[in-house]
Amino acid sequence: MTNLTLTTFDWVPEGPRGYVRDLRARWAMEEAGLAYRIATVPLRERGAAHLEHQPFGQVPWLIDGDISIFESGAILLHLGAYSETLLPTEPSRRAEAISWLFAALNSVEPPVITTAIFGFAGDSERTPGRERLDAFLHGRLSDMERVLVGQEWLAGDFSIADIAMVDAFRVVDRFAGGLAGYPACRDYITRATARPAFIKAHADQMAHFAAADRDRAPQSAAAPAA
Amino acid sequence: MTNLTLTTFDWVPEGPRGYVRDLRARWAMEEAGLAYRIATVPLRERGAAHLEHQPFGQVPWLIDGDISIFESGAILLHLGAYSETLLPTEPSRRAEAISWLFAALNSVEPPVITTAIFGFAGDSERTPGRERLDAFLHGRLSDMERVLVGQEWLAGDFSIADIAMVDAFRVVDRFAGGLAGYPACRDYITRATARPAFIKAHADQMAHFAAADRDRAPQSAAAPAA
Repeated sequence: MTNLTLTTFDWVPEGPRGYVRDLRARWAMEEAGLAYRIATVPLRERGAAHLEHQPFGQVPWLIDGDISIFESGAILLHLGAYSETLLPTEPSRRAEAISWLFAALNSVEPPVITTAIFGFAGDSERTPGRERLDAFLHGRLSDMERVLVGQEWLAGDFSIADIAMVDAFRVVDRFAGGLAGYPACRDYITRATARPAFIKAHADQMAHFAAADRDRAPQSAAAPAA
Repeated sequence: MTNLTLTTFDWVPEGPRGYVRDLRARWAMEEAGLAYRIATVPLRERGAAHLEHQPFGQVPWLIDGDISIFESGAILLHLGAYSETLLPTEPSRRAEAISWLFAALNSVEPPVITTAIFGFAGDSERTPGRERLDAFLHGRLSDMERVLVGQEWLAGDFSIADIAMVDAFRVVDRFAGGLAGYPACRDYITRATARPAFIKAHADQMAHFAAADRDRAPQSAAAPAA
């Protein structure tokens, strides 16, 4: 029996809903059929107890018995040990899946998240640095397009690597210029987000924040951005 | 007996020397006293065989017997299994070290690497997006300063998490505005880069590229940027 508790924010504004990173952990646990509880931490007051579990004042973190794990990548890797559905045990396949997990987080997501940051600022000025950031992002997407033309998932069967990569691609799709020029990447998102575990995880996150809206209806109009 | 081969570029210009990511793997293997060979791949022609091992045409990758691993984070994690010096086996400490490894790569390095990209482009324009990127970087560095004021290493003893975090900080120090306002982060780099394993790994990388200069002396003036 596992004893898993995933902590996320008590509430976030509408913008980031469906993209808060507890989604990655929810998705993995749904894929593996693991039971878990959701706990919350206040968005507006990030105190010492929060920083003890997550040093950047972010979410999620996962408690598994007496172990506390932060960073969505570390949580996915930890959950991978529970199920072949998440991470193969055969050493060569396992190394491939773990390589792709890190690729999603350290080679693809950095230009994605920073491009999204420029978008959130409404900044479309084509300065020399911005041109290079754009080339960085599109170089990575072109590489991924070449990879995904020939295969359904990154490392044989579906794995935690796909959870991380698809979630980075979802940010491109919504907040960083879209994937119009990358049909294999688009098909990959479509395929992944049609999985019942994604649908359940996404709906649960949306419902979690919607319920919080109802609890705090009077103040919600004055809420700060996440 | 291990059978480890680390592949890096045959040559790079002077700018990135000392920062090519094979350094992280060399450093880890020196810490653990693991024997390894260095192999090379051409910087100027990144063919199908290269992309087979590293889908973004980057380095390094590590061959361990019949397993091929790419992404410096995945390589560090793989090497961690060989030595308690790199990654503790006690589950709670291990989870802490792995959380910090992902934190270095997915929470700290993204604003570092993109800020460095703007620097490489000579772009100091303070657009609204750039202001947000700066706030992202300095938010992370402030969090790390708070963490490092109270401790020598990220997860108890030195671990692979420190290799990844220190290497990200080295980029801030050299290419992304410096660490003048973060004395605990600076002390952390000083402490880490004084370790004999770092000194050996760094000297070996510098010597590797210097030897390549001598081999190709006539062409080196015309070399493209890495």
